[in-house]
Amino acid sequence: MTPTGIGLRATLLVGTLALAAVPARATDDGAVKDFLLDNGMEVVVIPDHRAPIVTHMVWYKIGSADEPPGKSGIAHFFEHLMFKATTNHAAGEFDRAVAEIGGSNNAFTSYDYTAFHETVPPSALEEMMGFEADRMRNLILTDDVIKTERDVILEERRSRIDSNPQAVLDEEVDATLWQNQPYRIPVIGWMQEMEQLNRPDAKAFYDAYYRPNNAVLVVAGDVDPDAVKAMAERTYGKVARGPDLRPRIRPVEPEQNTKRTVTLTDARVSVPNFSTQWVVPSYHTARPGEAEALDLLAEILGGDNRSRLYQELVVKQGIASEAGAFFQGTMLDATNFTVYGAPRGDTKLADVEAAVDAEIARIVKDGVSDDELERAKTRYVRSMIFARDKQDDMANMYGSTLATGGNVKDVQEWPDRIRKVTADEVKAVAARYLVLDRSTTGYLLPQQQAGN
Amino acid sequence: MTPTGIGLRATLLVGTLALAAVPARATDDGAVKDFLLDNGMEVVVIPDHRAPIVTHMVWYKIGSADEPPGKSGIAHFFEHLMFKATTNHAAGEFDRAVAEIGGSNNAFTSYDYTAFHETVPPSALEEMMGFEADRMRNLILTDDVIKTERDVILEERRSRIDSNPQAVLDEEVDATLWQNQPYRIPVIGWMQEMEQLNRPDAKAFYDAYYRPNNAVLVVAGDVDPDAVKAMAERTYGKVARGPDLRPRIRPVEPEQNTKRTVTLTDARVSVPNFSTQWVVPSYHTARPGEAEALDLLAEILGGDNRSRLYQELVVKQGIASEAGAFFQGTMLDATNFTVYGAPRGDTKLADVEAAVDAEIARIVKDGVSDDELERAKTRYVRSMIFARDKQDDMANMYGSTLATGGNVKDVQEWPDRIRKVTADEVKAVAARYLVLDRSTTGYLLPQQQAGN
Repeated sequence: MTPTGIGLRATLLVGTLALAAVPARATDDGAVKDFLLDNGMEVVVIPDHRAPIVTHMVWYKIGSADEPPGKSGIAHFFEHLMFKATTNHAAGEFDRAVAEIGGSNNAFTSYDYTAFHETVPPSALEEMMGFEADRMRNLILTDDVIKTERDVILEERRSRIDSNPQAVLDEEVDATLWQNQPYRIPVIGWMQEMEQLNRPDAKAFYDAYYRPNNAVLVVAGDVDPDAVKAMAERTYGKVARGPDLRPRIRPVEPEQNTKRTVTLTDARVSVPNFSTQWVVPSYHTARPGEAEALDLLAEILGGDNRSRLYQELVVKQGIASEAGAFFQGTMLDATNFTVYGAPRGDTKLADVEAAVDAEIARIVKDGVSDDELERAKTRYVRSMIFARDKQDDMANMYGSTLATGGNVKDVQEWPDRIRKVTADEVKAVAARYLVLDRSTTGYLLPQQQAGN
Repeated sequence: MTPTGIGLRATLLVGTLALAAVPARATDDGAVKDFLLDNGMEVVVIPDHRAPIVTHMVWYKIGSADEPPGKSGIAHFFEHLMFKATTNHAAGEFDRAVAEIGGSNNAFTSYDYTAFHETVPPSALEEMMGFEADRMRNLILTDDVIKTERDVILEERRSRIDSNPQAVLDEEVDATLWQNQPYRIPVIGWMQEMEQLNRPDAKAFYDAYYRPNNAVLVVAGDVDPDAVKAMAERTYGKVARGPDLRPRIRPVEPEQNTKRTVTLTDARVSVPNFSTQWVVPSYHTARPGEAEALDLLAEILGGDNRSRLYQELVVKQGIASEAGAFFQGTMLDATNFTVYGAPRGDTKLADVEAAVDAEIARIVKDGVSDDELERAKTRYVRSMIFARDKQDDMANMYGSTLATGGNVKDVQEWPDRIRKVTADEVKAVAARYLVLDRSTTGYLLPQQQAGN
């Protein structure tokens, strides 16, 4: 078990791959069931009988964007603290139980949620539920535990962020793109605030958010929904409902009127790169159809090596070693659309950026062809058909959607909504959102190329 | 009475001029007295018998940087609401009372405080205290009052900020310079949050912060301190002490590792300009002597038309229509140091910026001469000697210092601390803080000069 802090780019993979897996063969095995326990805990069961394994995930609707001011890092801190001793189990006991049966487990934190998961044989499912239900309320949060794990997350920040120029730049780009919405704050936290996290902070956070009525249980695998329900009632069902939580209404981003840049020049950088971001709506905040259009825009513009950016810059012009685009749709609040590129050989970064901008201008002016749009949609469908070993992606898809304001129906109807997107709609979102005078660009430059 | 929202640049004038006035002749009239009322209200009396007038100010230690997340603008909202009806006086009655005796009154809001003031004949002082003490606790906050005044502040935002490209740019520069500390949030508030401010928000804010134990009374003028004390006890002394307030500990800025730019291109702009800012310590957060050195650095580099920037760029090279620097020292948390410039005639903005950067590089490398430093100190002293009609500046000086963590002694000893600053100390703060690779620059560009 290595707890991991996951930022916007990492969750992207979860989100997109997972969505692509929607009607995978697995779901042919039986309808997805969802229901509430009496204490308010939501349960989603996704039968998948291809192999005798089960993915068990608990998603807490609490992420870094919900943290109190000045307490950045505390959501991710719990990704660690949850592996410590409870009143019923010593620290490490849960991990050992998983390892003994040949399973795997982990956890991750994002802006909108914190999730814990195990993949085990179905016979061990109820034991997992017992462990998870126990640590939901019975953690022993002593000053010693806080201090020890705080040292761990501080070291994690040093090694993952502070010693990595790209990560340092990304943090400051995020805080420049977002000027009010809390996605501006790094998931792992700011050092000077992490250093101050203490036991009262942790206790207050745990008591407020680690409650069945703030959690979603997702079970995907070789299980029977009724049996899962009975097990969930015997384990999670015993945990008392917590106080009602306030709606997750966070500060909203003001309109952006400027072009912003953030430049990090560092001797450790060998190849420069840039990325340009825009604030765009997420699936949760968008007008109907806009988020789907943004997904297809990202796919066509820079989704993979069949995309316009890759084909034009990497293959045809040969000026870029990489170029692409992505849209992070599965967020509770407004999200980001990003394009990026890096030069190949002696090409100047500015020339790569100009070529990326030209592709954006072209799509804004001329839109996409029907044929191109169909192929993009087909790529999604194909990835569904050939989906294999995607049990955890399916669980991720339901979990991340339900933890960011969506429901089971949103997940299931998503492929149909994608199919309905028109070429005009893709052009419209490009024109509406990809405006360079209202963008935020990060530049990572080698020391000697500072003037590039 | 026209309530005003005052931002960082406006408060600068208050702070600097006021500090310059410290040992003005006025204080020769008698020692400054300060004391606490039983309910915790601090009182400062500055005798000044040059003319039969008195400046009466109440400073609340509550500014925009203390606002709850998502409630930007509520501190400034109270600058307006405080002029509405109370249980004892109809709306407008206070204003009329001031006008009838030939006085003047106003209010202002900043990041760290909100202040209300009247200038009247000494015979009216107790009446003013009565009115101020009344509205400290007896405002009638109905939905109607909230709605009406909210429309006023929304219109104020539209006219002052949204219709002014420089103000729009300044807001986004502030939110780019500050990535965590709440000075990133505009004092007037963000439109989408101001629109949502409601009666429960206002009531909670008023009850938490408009209390005698969160206020500083400053009386400067033709008064006797003992008489002022008796009046204050008869008026403010009747207001019950409120619950203890939590220490004003706000999110702290992380270290900046990047060079950031913010560019607004607008058809309404005729002459471009730029300003570059750095995060630096304030008088309240600095190591001993650093804030004083920053004050003198700003004075020497760009304080007025005898400064290096003005002399070099405007007078000698003739490339700039304006160029200067300022340091906003009177803040509760870390503050900003700013240089700025605008081209003259056909000069390119980039050339002006390069010339400003060259002056910074020169001061970082070679420091300042003893002679230059002495002249800068003398300019302060001279402005003290010739200070006239500065009664309100003196009151501002004490009020702003006391509302940002300082005390009466800090104000009184400030000139001596300035005199002690050495040329090496000025050079040291320039080298430590004015690093271009860790700066934030705003560019205001005319439409046709976008490529400048």
